[in-house]
Amino acid sequence: MLAQNVELLSDDQIQTIHEASLGVLQEVGIRVLNETAREIFCRHGCQVNTQTGNVCFPQELVEKWRKIFPSTFRFYGRDPRYDITIPDDGPAIATTGIAPDVLDIENGERRRATSEDLSRIANLVNMLPGIDLFFVSTLLSDVPEDRYSLNSLYISAKKCLKPIRCGVNTVQNFKDIIALGECIAGGTEAFQERPFFYFGHTASISPLTINNESTSMVIEAVRRGLPSMAAVVPNSGLTAPLTSAGTLVLANAEFLAINILIQMVKEATPVIYYSLPATSDMRNGAFSCGGIESGILQMGCAQLARFYGVPSGGYAGATNAKLSDAQAGFEKGMSPMAAMLGGLNMVMLAGLIDALMVFSYPQLVIDSEIGEMIKRVYKGISLDNDELALDVIKTIGPGGLYIDSQHTLRHMRTATYFPDIASRQSWQKWWDTGKYDTQARALKRVWNILAGDNPDAFSPDVDAKIRATFSDSLYVSV
Amino acid sequence: MLAQNVELLSDDQIQTIHEASLGVLQEVGIRVLNETAREIFCRHGCQVNTQTGNVCFPQELVEKWRKIFPSTFRFYGRDPRYDITIPDDGPAIATTGIAPDVLDIENGERRRATSEDLSRIANLVNMLPGIDLFFVSTLLSDVPEDRYSLNSLYISAKKCLKPIRCGVNTVQNFKDIIALGECIAGGTEAFQERPFFYFGHTASISPLTINNESTSMVIEAVRRGLPSMAAVVPNSGLTAPLTSAGTLVLANAEFLAINILIQMVKEATPVIYYSLPATSDMRNGAFSCGGIESGILQMGCAQLARFYGVPSGGYAGATNAKLSDAQAGFEKGMSPMAAMLGGLNMVMLAGLIDALMVFSYPQLVIDSEIGEMIKRVYKGISLDNDELALDVIKTIGPGGLYIDSQHTLRHMRTATYFPDIASRQSWQKWWDTGKYDTQARALKRVWNILAGDNPDAFSPDVDAKIRATFSDSLYVSV
Repeated sequence: MLAQNVELLSDDQIQTIHEASLGVLQEVGIRVLNETAREIFCRHGCQVNTQTGNVCFPQELVEKWRKIFPSTFRFYGRDPRYDITIPDDGPAIATTGIAPDVLDIENGERRRATSEDLSRIANLVNMLPGIDLFFVSTLLSDVPEDRYSLNSLYISAKKCLKPIRCGVNTVQNFKDIIALGECIAGGTEAFQERPFFYFGHTASISPLTINNESTSMVIEAVRRGLPSMAAVVPNSGLTAPLTSAGTLVLANAEFLAINILIQMVKEATPVIYYSLPATSDMRNGAFSCGGIESGILQMGCAQLARFYGVPSGGYAGATNAKLSDAQAGFEKGMSPMAAMLGGLNMVMLAGLIDALMVFSYPQLVIDSEIGEMIKRVYKGISLDNDELALDVIKTIGPGGLYIDSQHTLRHMRTATYFPDIASRQSWQKWWDTGKYDTQARALKRVWNILAGDNPDAFSPDVDAKIRATFSDSLYVSV
Repeated sequence: MLAQNVELLSDDQIQTIHEASLGVLQEVGIRVLNETAREIFCRHGCQVNTQTGNVCFPQELVEKWRKIFPSTFRFYGRDPRYDITIPDDGPAIATTGIAPDVLDIENGERRRATSEDLSRIANLVNMLPGIDLFFVSTLLSDVPEDRYSLNSLYISAKKCLKPIRCGVNTVQNFKDIIALGECIAGGTEAFQERPFFYFGHTASISPLTINNESTSMVIEAVRRGLPSMAAVVPNSGLTAPLTSAGTLVLANAEFLAINILIQMVKEATPVIYYSLPATSDMRNGAFSCGGIESGILQMGCAQLARFYGVPSGGYAGATNAKLSDAQAGFEKGMSPMAAMLGGLNMVMLAGLIDALMVFSYPQLVIDSEIGEMIKRVYKGISLDNDELALDVIKTIGPGGLYIDSQHTLRHMRTATYFPDIASRQSWQKWWDTGKYDTQARALKRVWNILAGDNPDAFSPDVDAKIRATFSDSLYVSV
């Protein structure tokens, strides 16, 4: 493990941002569009302006509630070997969502995503070693909107044993999902003990607004004891100050407000400092989630999360690239590396291109490899006696070769990372074998995985039971 | 500026590597193939085994000499506005060398590099904002080997005002180069005051060997008061232990030996902890300079450099990719980001692909942009009152938009980085304007720069004087 994270800011500067956020919460407040949330805030001592819906937070109240945020967040997999707790087991690498479109796996053309796409994606995520968390990547154009959550989770859970996250829109969705989880887990208790479905909500809308519908869902999830992640999504220059410091102040105020609400609903509910900071390109207003500022802001968010003693996570590998080219490579490599080294515990980077609008099969495979490289850096190096290698340095001495030493043989499987997609062929061999670029090699790997032996994650009996339970609601045959 | 670097290792672990290197230098020693160097080491108290040529270093001697390494290294540009001192002005972004081949600028095909290529490259480096140091990128197939240094520096200096580095093979090379420098600077004193040519040597050959010819050149340069950079180039699993800890011990012993030699030749000569660590892929023996281990090892080297109080620099953006695709993007983005955040003061990343064997024009342009992104992260964020933006947060309040605020207008030119090659077009616009990938866009930019107004860096008079002085030795017409 690394001895010390990068610190974007000094301790004093973090304190400055914290205090500035307290000032914003006390003096400006948050517009709370959800009535239940307003009532909860009011009941706990916030000042609610009934005309504007603005809620102001006394500093002592924020200081009191922010101290009860739990320090860890656990993701359960369907299979316990995929359980992951942040920050302890981090960095966790996650897919990103939710794209309406995909690049077709056959012809590469952009079109609406379908159930069949999601099934393939779930299968790939299950097999790719660099990805820990499956946050459902796409919408489903072949499923009615109000059945999206159930169908997405059914398709995903059928092929993927890793922790799964999805959006939820209605109370009925929640009921369906819990029933689905219970079917899969084999009972109410089994699912309550290991709830392997997760929910993400953009209840907090920049600037300084807590919305109505998503907030209902957050409250619903927390009341049911279901893990919920509430995102803050400031867009510097559009919905937040253009300056990074100002964006952090605003995002931090929003993080505090929504997560204090969660604590007020149920104390000690696990939370994540969960953010998607991005900038607007002032030349044309473009949503520039691939900009390096996303990485810089995530370094700041991760440091604020450490200040509050909560795990951090969020998007740090979004790209504005339209295909898996050099831009996709450096935008998906650099910000996540910077954010992880800044202490981001959950790095959402895998699968999407074109500013989160399009899922790309080859990109998912490339991103898994980027995820493995990030984890390799996080792991750091070991300095035990055998790793220090003083004996072999002495034995081989000046001018010798290490390639056939016992020391090399002993470490050859573990000492270095063996990439699958990054090619180390000689030029000649690369030339002779078709001159494929990385995107083409990754697409080959996609087909390779999909052609492999990928049994369903639950038995035909369980599947039959699910089909019977949801005979009206499952629109998919995959 | 960042408040705190990443630390790959704890202080205790750095001490362990330091002590292990002292042990290697004392017990195993360095094979010194250069007679002058052996004499210098002997004269200063090292034990020389006259049969093997091995030189052993008493610990006290190493501890004494390593304490006089100067703490800064200054690069002079031909134009003082390109002067850069590391670590103070870092991270400095440099090109990498020295490739025998290029991808032809017209047809993209691989062939030997020529003087015309180098002239174009120097021109591009001069114009690209992300690159601070021009380390000559290619060999010259149209120039005799013994005239390589003179011709390379003439071509480079004619088009590039930034600090320039080249290899040197003979004493005659040195004399020629100094005469060239004096011609350009306008006199002996002018060049001595601001020596804008730099020399890199691989005098240290892993494992634990100081070679003959390059070491002569290092001694020659130091005696003449010319800036010299002595590289350590361990290859884990081939010429160094496969384990990262062992590679660091070996590299560190080599760094100490060659740089103590430099101090013994002339005390307080500025040095750099200058390294190119890479691994061998144990599956096929490939030189895997694009592997993430290069970044990890550079984090270690940078930390050791801080321990010794010397600036650090080296290769951290080599790639095994054969074209400017996603692999080139993430290999050139991730290791340099990790190494810079680990404190590497000079990051050599620009221009080469295929494991340093091939120069690519579009890659140089892409790498300049990567360099700018790295510097943006290093710069960190400012927290002055205007950046904190409390007034505007208060004024705009919940639910407003920042896009047309005075605060946004005031910061729009500086708050975020505006990429040139990374596209933020909408999908439709990208589609309608030719669906170019990043490599193609970068190549367009190459042509664009080369078509621009790029006056020679020195006058026709100076050029005529150089041509007259070196009428027998200049083989180039560019």
